[in-house]
Amino acid sequence: MLGAFSGEGVWLIGRISEKLMMRKMFLGCAESCTGGLASALCTNVPGSSRWFRGAVVAYDNAVKTRLLKVDESLLAANGAVSGPVVEAMAKGALEALDAHVTLAVSGIAGPDGGSPDKPVGTVWIATALRYTGRAPGEPQMVRTAAFSRVFPGDRNDVRFGAALEALGAVEAALDGPGG
Amino acid sequence: MLGAFSGEGVWLIGRISEKLMMRKMFLGCAESCTGGLASALCTNVPGSSRWFRGAVVAYDNAVKTRLLKVDESLLAANGAVSGPVVEAMAKGALEALDAHVTLAVSGIAGPDGGSPDKPVGTVWIATALRYTGRAPGEPQMVRTAAFSRVFPGDRNDVRFGAALEALGAVEAALDGPGG
Repeated sequence: MLGAFSGEGVWLIGRISEKLMMRKMFLGCAESCTGGLASALCTNVPGSSRWFRGAVVAYDNAVKTRLLKVDESLLAANGAVSGPVVEAMAKGALEALDAHVTLAVSGIAGPDGGSPDKPVGTVWIATALRYTGRAPGEPQMVRTAAFSRVFPGDRNDVRFGAALEALGAVEAALDGPGG
Repeated sequence: MLGAFSGEGVWLIGRISEKLMMRKMFLGCAESCTGGLASALCTNVPGSSRWFRGAVVAYDNAVKTRLLKVDESLLAANGAVSGPVVEAMAKGALEALDAHVTLAVSGIAGPDGGSPDKPVGTVWIATALRYTGRAPGEPQMVRTAAFSRVFPGDRNDVRFGAALEALGAVEAALDGPGG
């Protein structure tokens, strides 16, 4: 899966970067289990400063609340690996990084930390996109999307798989309404 | 250099993580040109949540000022790739991530962006370490260190080389006074 730095990952990021630059938009990342991988894949591409703002790697929940403004009650009620938390991370990253579109990832990369309802490999992914309606004077809105997947393989497979899947979700968000 | 995910990088991070866990300390990263690689290398190791807090990938200067509290005047006077700025990034990451020790990296990974005095491959690296003196009631202090290197090779070599060098600097900081 280290091939993500040279193979399919590069093609995916090439497509995302073109869409972002055409729209003069900037991407930001909020990463938990991927721990900076999505960001490292983006910045592997020369010239990425023209469309990549930065990332918050919120490995510790305190970083999620402190820098991404995720409510502690949301973490307590749903756990860090959940739809509401990744949506809040993606929205928080829009603000923290002053980005137009963001991805957020939180999951259980293993080998420990799994449970019957959230086995190792479970990853929640979200995107958030700022957009302005077409009517004059319409306020800026934020569209979010979240989904989960269980990735097979070892820790490395889960992390690279999740990073690429999250970047794929950014491409989908850019192709959707408001993107 | 992708071998950093499996070879020397893993050994280095193994040594750092043991030192951190023995001292009950947490690491945080402030990354510009490495774009999340140092953080991705740390979190590649199972159980890293016991010693790794998170990272701010401050690719854009606005993220350096906003999340790491780097003074705009410092950036204006020295440029982002400079000793004063990486020291400020490392200190800012101690606060932003509530970490005990941090690394900061800012450099010119290329292929563009080089200049006669700062050629492609120039990277500034800093560490910051919080410590308390041995005398009773002594306040908490912060020790910083910064240095630059010019890394040979392509963008990938510069980025992986800088990430590993910065992690090596963390090990040196932990072996030094107050560590």
